[in-house]
Amino acid sequence: MARDIVNFNAGPAGLPTPVLERAQSELLEFEGTHMSIMEHSHRGKAYDAVHHEAMDLTKSLLKVPDTHEVFFMQGGASGMFATVPMNFLSEGRVADYVVTGAWSKKALAEAQFVGEARAAADGRNADGKFVSVPTEWDLTEGAAYVHVTSNNTIFGTQMKSFPKLASPMVADMSSDIMSRPLNVEDFGLIYAGAQKNLGPSGVVLAIIKKDWLQEASTKIPKIFRYKTHVDKQSLFHTPPTFAIYLMRNVMQWIGENGGLEGMQARNAEKAKHLYGAIDESGGFFNCPVDKEARSHMNVVWRLPSEDLEKRFIAEAAEAGMVGLKGHRDVGGIRASVYNAVEVAGVQRLVSFMSDFKSKNG
Amino acid sequence: MARDIVNFNAGPAGLPTPVLERAQSELLEFEGTHMSIMEHSHRGKAYDAVHHEAMDLTKSLLKVPDTHEVFFMQGGASGMFATVPMNFLSEGRVADYVVTGAWSKKALAEAQFVGEARAAADGRNADGKFVSVPTEWDLTEGAAYVHVTSNNTIFGTQMKSFPKLASPMVADMSSDIMSRPLNVEDFGLIYAGAQKNLGPSGVVLAIIKKDWLQEASTKIPKIFRYKTHVDKQSLFHTPPTFAIYLMRNVMQWIGENGGLEGMQARNAEKAKHLYGAIDESGGFFNCPVDKEARSHMNVVWRLPSEDLEKRFIAEAAEAGMVGLKGHRDVGGIRASVYNAVEVAGVQRLVSFMSDFKSKNG
Repeated sequence: MARDIVNFNAGPAGLPTPVLERAQSELLEFEGTHMSIMEHSHRGKAYDAVHHEAMDLTKSLLKVPDTHEVFFMQGGASGMFATVPMNFLSEGRVADYVVTGAWSKKALAEAQFVGEARAAADGRNADGKFVSVPTEWDLTEGAAYVHVTSNNTIFGTQMKSFPKLASPMVADMSSDIMSRPLNVEDFGLIYAGAQKNLGPSGVVLAIIKKDWLQEASTKIPKIFRYKTHVDKQSLFHTPPTFAIYLMRNVMQWIGENGGLEGMQARNAEKAKHLYGAIDESGGFFNCPVDKEARSHMNVVWRLPSEDLEKRFIAEAAEAGMVGLKGHRDVGGIRASVYNAVEVAGVQRLVSFMSDFKSKNG
Repeated sequence: MARDIVNFNAGPAGLPTPVLERAQSELLEFEGTHMSIMEHSHRGKAYDAVHHEAMDLTKSLLKVPDTHEVFFMQGGASGMFATVPMNFLSEGRVADYVVTGAWSKKALAEAQFVGEARAAADGRNADGKFVSVPTEWDLTEGAAYVHVTSNNTIFGTQMKSFPKLASPMVADMSSDIMSRPLNVEDFGLIYAGAQKNLGPSGVVLAIIKKDWLQEASTKIPKIFRYKTHVDKQSLFHTPPTFAIYLMRNVMQWIGENGGLEGMQARNAEKAKHLYGAIDESGGFFNCPVDKEARSHMNVVWRLPSEDLEKRFIAEAAEAGMVGLKGHRDVGGIRASVYNAVEVAGVQRLVSFMSDFKSKNG
C-alpha cells in the first residue's frame, strides 16, 4: 500500500501526507497559472502571496509579538552558526554558549572563528555524555548574547523551559520549532532549519527582536546581515521559493490540526507511549537520558547488545518502520517523532518493540 | 489546455515539462521507498545516489577535467558574492572585477566589505548603460582573482568567449550555465545559482580548481569554506536535497537533448528568430545591445513608447506568453529564453510580435 511506512528519520524527515498530496496535485499547475510555483518569479503576485502567507502563519502560530519580526534565510542551522556571531559578536564583546550536544558544540566552534565565544555551561556528565540539560549557567555580564539549543537530535534531550535573561537569548530550535507553544518575547533570535518540523531542507525560519537588530554589524557583506532580509521582507535576493511554499503548506496543516497546542498534545502522547514502552521493558530497552530532559522529538534508547540493536533496526525496517538507527556518534536506536509522525505510527513501533522483546528478551 | 503558456521569466524560470512530470509522479513514492525524496535522509542510500549522480552529470556534461572538483552550496549567486572574497581575498591582495551589469556591481560591492576589490573594467557607455561587454581589462598584476559575469540578465549582454588569464578567473554563470560548451580548465571557479537553467532556487552549482582551493582561507567559519564542501562531497551539512534532485533531473534532460552542444544549437536558433524579428522590424522593435554582445539567454528590446510596451506585455500575457516585462531598472521588454524554453515558444512570440507591429506600427 502506498506510503504504508512510518518514517522516523531525524532530518530531512517525513512530511504530512496531505501536504505532499497537495504539492503533487499543483506541481505543474499552480492555481490556474499553468505553471509550477517554482517557475514563478519571486517578485510576481502568485509567489508573493505564498511568501507573505508563510510569514503571517509563522506570526499567528507562534503568537509573534510586534516587537519581533519574521524572516527567512537560505541554508540551514549550520549557516546561522556563523552568521549569528557575524551579526552580533563585535570586537570586545563575549558570547556565551550553553553546550548541550553536538550542534551547540558546532555553533560555538564556528563563533570562535568570528570573535570571542565561550561555553557558559557544558551538559556532559562524568562519562563525557550529554544525558541532561544543565540548568546552572555561568553567564558573562553584558554578554553579546547567550546561545542555546532547544532540542538535541543526537542525544535526545530537550529544554523544557527557557529562562528570562539580561542578555539577548539566541535559540537554535531546528529540531523542535512549532512542536509546542513558545514565549517569543523572551528571545533575541529564534532560528530553525526547516527539515525536521517545517518542510524540506534548504530554508531557515527566523524570528528576531527588532530593537536588537538595530545593533547588528553593518560591516559584513549585505547578504549575511539579518537586517537586509528583515528590511526587504526576505526578498533581497531570490528566496528558495519551493521550500517556502512547502513550509507554508506545513504551517497550514499545523493550523488545521490544533495549532501548537494541538502539536504539543500529540507530541506528548507519542512521547508517553514510547518512553512508557522503554521504561516498562524491565531494562531490555534503556533510555540513558534523565527523565526531566527527555526530548519529545528524538527518543533514544539502547538494547542489551549491539547485535540486538542491528537486528531491531533491520526487522523494524522490514516491518515498514524506517530511520531508527541512532546517530553514528552514539549508536543505539533513535526514533525521531516530529510533528508529522502520527500517534498510530508510534503505536505501531511500540507494538513492534513489545514483540521484539518477547522474542529476544 | 494544461501548461499551454510560454514562460519567459528571468528566474526563477520555467523548467522542462518532462522534468516536472517526473517529479510529480514520484513526489510521494520515490523509487519504491514509499517516501518522497525530500523525506529521505541526506546520508541514506536513496538520496546519496541522486546526489552523486548530480555531481557526475555536471562532470560529464561540462567535461570537467580532473584538475577541478564539483560542489554544491546553499543559496544563490548573492551568497557567492560574499564567500568568494572570504575564501580568496586575503589581506594585502587585490581582486579585480569586470563590471558588466547589475550583478557584477553587486558582486564587487560585497567583496569590498571583505577586502580590497576594484573594477578592472566597466562596461557602461557614455549614457551610463551596459550595452556591450568590455574586452579591454585593466588587470592588477598578481590579482587574487579576476571576477567576471558571463551573462547579464538585466541588460541582455553575454560574454561570447573567455580569455586565458594569469590570475584565477572566477565566473558567475548563474544565467547561462550549461547553455553552451565551456573550457572549464580556464577557470579558477565557476558558480551558478540553479534557478535559470538548472532547477529551482535554493542551490548553487560550483566547480573549482583543486590546486587553487588549497590557497583558500582557513580562518573563516567552516560553513563558508569551499574546501569544507569539496572535502565532504557537499554533505558537510544537510544539502537542499529536493533542489539537488530536481537539478539532477534537469541535467538528465539536457543529456537526453543533445548535451551542451544540443542546448547551444537550440539557444542559437531561438536567438536567431528573436533578434531577427527585432532587427527586421524597421525600428518598431529596438534592441539597444551591441550585436556582438547580444545574449542568447535574455533578449531585451524597446518599443516606440512605454504605453506600447505596456500594451505589448498585457496582450502577450493574454495570449499565453508571460514574464516579458523588462527589469524594473531598465524597463522595456525582456524575453528570457533559457534552455527550457522551446523553439516553438519563441516562434509563437515572434508571430505575436509581427501581429502587434501590424496593428500598432
